Amino acid sequence: MRLVEGLGTAIGHEYVLTGDACARYTTDWTKRYVSDPVAVVRPGSTEEVSKVMALAHETGTPVVPVSGNTGLSGGTYASRSLMLSLDRMNRIREIRAEARIALVEAGVILSSLHDACEEHDLVFPLTFGARGSALVGGALSTNAGGSNVLRYGSTRGLCLGLEIVLADGRVLDLMTELHKDNTGYDLRDLFIGAEGTLGVITGAVLRLFPKPKAYATAMVAAASLQDALALLDRLQAASGGGVEAFEYMPRSYIERHVTHIPGARAPFERQHDVNIMVEVGAIAPRDALPDSDGSVPVVTSLESELACAMDQGLVLDAVVARTEAQRTEMWKRREDAAEIILGRLPMVDNDIAVPTDRVPDFFEEMEKELAAIDSNAQTMAVAHLGDGNIHYVVFPTSGEPSDIDTIREKVESVARSLRGSFSAEHGIGLAKLPSMRRRKNAVAIDVMRAVKSALDPKGILNPGKVVPQA
Amino acid sequence: MRLVEGLGTAIGHEYVLTGDACARYTTDWTKRYVSDPVAVVRPGSTEEVSKVMALAHETGTPVVPVSGNTGLSGGTYASRSLMLSLDRMNRIREIRAEARIALVEAGVILSSLHDACEEHDLVFPLTFGARGSALVGGALSTNAGGSNVLRYGSTRGLCLGLEIVLADGRVLDLMTELHKDNTGYDLRDLFIGAEGTLGVITGAVLRLFPKPKAYATAMVAAASLQDALALLDRLQAASGGGVEAFEYMPRSYIERHVTHIPGARAPFERQHDVNIMVEVGAIAPRDALPDSDGSVPVVTSLESELACAMDQGLVLDAVVARTEAQRTEMWKRREDAAEIILGRLPMVDNDIAVPTDRVPDFFEEMEKELAAIDSNAQTMAVAHLGDGNIHYVVFPTSGEPSDIDTIREKVESVARSLRGSFSAEHGIGLAKLPSMRRRKNAVAIDVMRAVKSALDPKGILNPGKVVPQA
Repeated sequence: MRLVEGLGTAIGHEYVLTGDACARYTTDWTKRYVSDPVAVVRPGSTEEVSKVMALAHETGTPVVPVSGNTGLSGGTYASRSLMLSLDRMNRIREIRAEARIALVEAGVILSSLHDACEEHDLVFPLTFGARGSALVGGALSTNAGGSNVLRYGSTRGLCLGLEIVLADGRVLDLMTELHKDNTGYDLRDLFIGAEGTLGVITGAVLRLFPKPKAYATAMVAAASLQDALALLDRLQAASGGGVEAFEYMPRSYIERHVTHIPGARAPFERQHDVNIMVEVGAIAPRDALPDSDGSVPVVTSLESELACAMDQGLVLDAVVARTEAQRTEMWKRREDAAEIILGRLPMVDNDIAVPTDRVPDFFEEMEKELAAIDSNAQTMAVAHLGDGNIHYVVFPTSGEPSDIDTIREKVESVARSLRGSFSAEHGIGLAKLPSMRRRKNAVAIDVMRAVKSALDPKGILNPGKVVPQA
Repeated sequence: MRLVEGLGTAIGHEYVLTGDACARYTTDWTKRYVSDPVAVVRPGSTEEVSKVMALAHETGTPVVPVSGNTGLSGGTYASRSLMLSLDRMNRIREIRAEARIALVEAGVILSSLHDACEEHDLVFPLTFGARGSALVGGALSTNAGGSNVLRYGSTRGLCLGLEIVLADGRVLDLMTELHKDNTGYDLRDLFIGAEGTLGVITGAVLRLFPKPKAYATAMVAAASLQDALALLDRLQAASGGGVEAFEYMPRSYIERHVTHIPGARAPFERQHDVNIMVEVGAIAPRDALPDSDGSVPVVTSLESELACAMDQGLVLDAVVARTEAQRTEMWKRREDAAEIILGRLPMVDNDIAVPTDRVPDFFEEMEKELAAIDSNAQTMAVAHLGDGNIHYVVFPTSGEPSDIDTIREKVESVARSLRGSFSAEHGIGLAKLPSMRRRKNAVAIDVMRAVKSALDPKGILNPGKVVPQA
C-alpha cells in the first residue's frame, strides 16, 4: 500500500506496523474499544510526526494520536485510520531545576517524569492510578486531573509551553518557558484538552514544584460527607492551603477493595460509610523539620486537628501514617480504583463534578432516582472530594445499551441540576459524545465546530471524537 | 443615522453617545490614542450587549469593546467604529465565600471587587497600579498580570468561567463554577487575552483566595540583581511559597519617584542600585498569629532571613514595615510607576519578559546596545522581578518614529536572544503589531488568523488589533 510505503520511507519501515503487529495498540485499557487501524506508526521525533501528518493530510487519511492508551472514554478508537503512537518519543529533554521546569517529549511516561524530578527534590504534581503507563501527551490532551488537583490544579495549569504538529504537518512551536508571555491568542490552551482533534502534541514545557519536605497522611472515618468537607476546610486553614489530596471512598468501595485486591486490608476495625484519605504536604522548614521532641509539625498539626474533630463528633476514627509503607498502603487503596471497578459487568461509569458543597446532595438524589429506575442496581464510588469530582459507578441489572444510557442520562441530569458537569476529567472521546449532544450548550458546540474546521479543514485529526457532528 | 437609532431603541437613547458626548471615552489613558468613533454605546446587561452586537453584525459595523480604558497598547483605539463600553455593567452578582468564587459582570472596577472581597476575609489577588479604574473585562481581555502573579498567577489562572457575546450577538455561556469541567475545547482561555477581537466578555466566575492573616513587607537594597534573585529563592523556601510580590526598582526609578511625586521619600538613607519591595503573606495561623512575645512569625522570619543575607553580603540595607501606613507607602512607591514614566517625551516603553535568571543579562546587554544606538539616551525600569517581567523605559534623544522603532526592535532582539517574550503583560493592541509581525512565529500567526476568521468571519470585533493582517 502506497501510504504505508511512504510512511516507512519517512520514519523507517520497522516503525510502521500493520496486521497482527498492531495488536499491542488496538485494544484500549478498558477493553471496550478494539480498533482496526490501517497501520500503527511510531515516529521517533517531532520532525517524523510532521512527515507522517503531511502524508496523511495529502492522502486525506484520518489519524488517531495514541499515548499510553490508558484513557477511559474511547478517545483512541480507530477504525480504518492511522494510529500515531507517541511511545518512542519518550525523552525528557531537560530538567531545569532552578527554573523549575521540565522540557519533555510527549511520549514520556508520567511515572518516569516523577522519578526524574525526585532526583532534583522536585515534583511534577499530576498523579493518578495509571501513571505507570500514561504518557505526558495523553495527559495534556485530556487535561488530566487526578488526586493532586486540589493543591496544584489540572494538567492545564502545570503546562507553560507546548509543541504541536498541525493537521497538515506544520509544527506549531509554543514552547515558551515564561510565566508571562502574552503575544496573541492562547493557542496552547486550545490544544490542551482537545484530545488530539486539533493537533498532535509532541512536546511540552512543564512546571515543577518543590517536593514537600514532609507529608502527613491519614485515613479518616468522617461522621458524614458534610463533616468531611468541614474537616477539609479546617485542614486547609490550619496548613495554609497545604492539603495535597482529599479522597473519598464509601463503604462499598472499601468492601470491594478488600475483596478484590490480594493482601488488601480495611483501614479501620469497624466499617464506616465515609472513608477519607487525606494528605498534607509541608514545604516550609517550619512545618517539615522535626521539633525538639522529634515530632514533625505537619504531622502533629494533622493529628491535633483530627483529635479536635473527633471530640466534636465530626470524625469517628482516624489513622495517621507513621511510616512510608503505611503511606504507600493508603495511596494504593485509592489508586486501585480502576482495577476494582472494571471487570464487573454490566457497569455504567460516570465522571461528574458538582460544587463541593453539593456532593452530599448528589449521592442522596442518585439513590432516590436509581431506586426508581432499577431497584436492584448496586453502586460504588470514589471521589476527589475536594474538587467535587465523583466517579460514580452503577452496576445495573440490565446491560442493554438503552438501559445503560437511561442511567447515564439520569446521572447527568442530577449533576446538572446541582450546577455540575457531566465530564470532569476523563474526557469526551467517543463515550461521552451522546452526553455532549444532549448537555453541552449549543452555542459552545457551534464555536467548537468552527474552531475544528479552522484548524483541521480536512477533518483528519481523530475524527468523530469530542465534538458531535452536525 | 439608522444604526444609532436602532441602538438607541435597543438599549435606551441616553446610552448611545455621539459627538462631544463621547469625549470621556475617546482618549486612552496614555493619551497617545484619540479615537473618533461612530458612537459610544453603554449597554446595561448581557442581553443589551447581545442586541448591540447583532445590530453591528447585521450592518457590518466594527465594534471596539472598552473597559476601564487603562490599557497601554492602544487596544481600544477606534476609528469610525462603535465603541462598546462595559462601564454600566458594574454589578458584583454574587460573592460565594465558602466556594471562594465571585460572579461578576465585566464592568466591575477591580478595586471595588477588592473591597467587596475584604468583607469576607478573601482576596481577588490581581493587583496593579490602575486598579481604581481598570475593569474586570479588560483585565480578562488582556490576561493582565501585576504584582501578585508571583504567587497567584495571571488573570487567566484566576478565572473559572466566562460569559461572552460573540460577533453575531449570540451569547456563549461558559459560566462554570467548577474547577474540573472538561466538556470539549477550552474556549474560555481563547477569549481571555484575545483583547476583544474574538468576542465581548460580559461576565466571569472568578477565584477568590483566603486573605493572608498577616503580611511581612520590606524594602531591601540588594548588592546585585543576582543577589536579589538568590534572596527570593531563600524567602520562597523559608515561607513555603508565600512570597506575594518581589518588585525591582533601580536607582533611576527611586530618583524619579522622589522628584515627581509630592511627599515621596527615598526608602534608604543612601542611594542603592537594586531596590526591592518584597511582601510575604501568611495564611496559616502558625505563621500569622503573634508568638508569646508579640512578634508575628512571618515578620520574624523575614527579618531573620534579611539579617542572614546582610551578614553574607547579599543585602546592603533593609527596612521592614512596622505599620500599615509604612506598608502602604512601600506599595505606593511601586504603584506610582505609570505616573512617573509617562509625561516625559520622547519615550519608548517596553514590556518584556525573560527567564528570571537572565534578568541581569538583559540590563547588561541593553546598556551596551543602547550606547551604540543612542549614547545620550536615558533609561528607567521597574520589574516584577520574580516573573522576569521588566518594564524597560528608554528616554531617547530623538522622538522620530523610526528611531523609536529602532530602539524597540533592539529591546525585542535582546529579550528574544535570552529566550524571552516581547510582550509580557500589557497586551498587543495596536502598539505591538509591528513586534508581532516581526517576532511572533509565522505558524502561530497563521493559526490565530484561522481562529479569528472562524469566530468573527465579518471581521467586526476590534479589527486591526492583536493579529497582524495578512
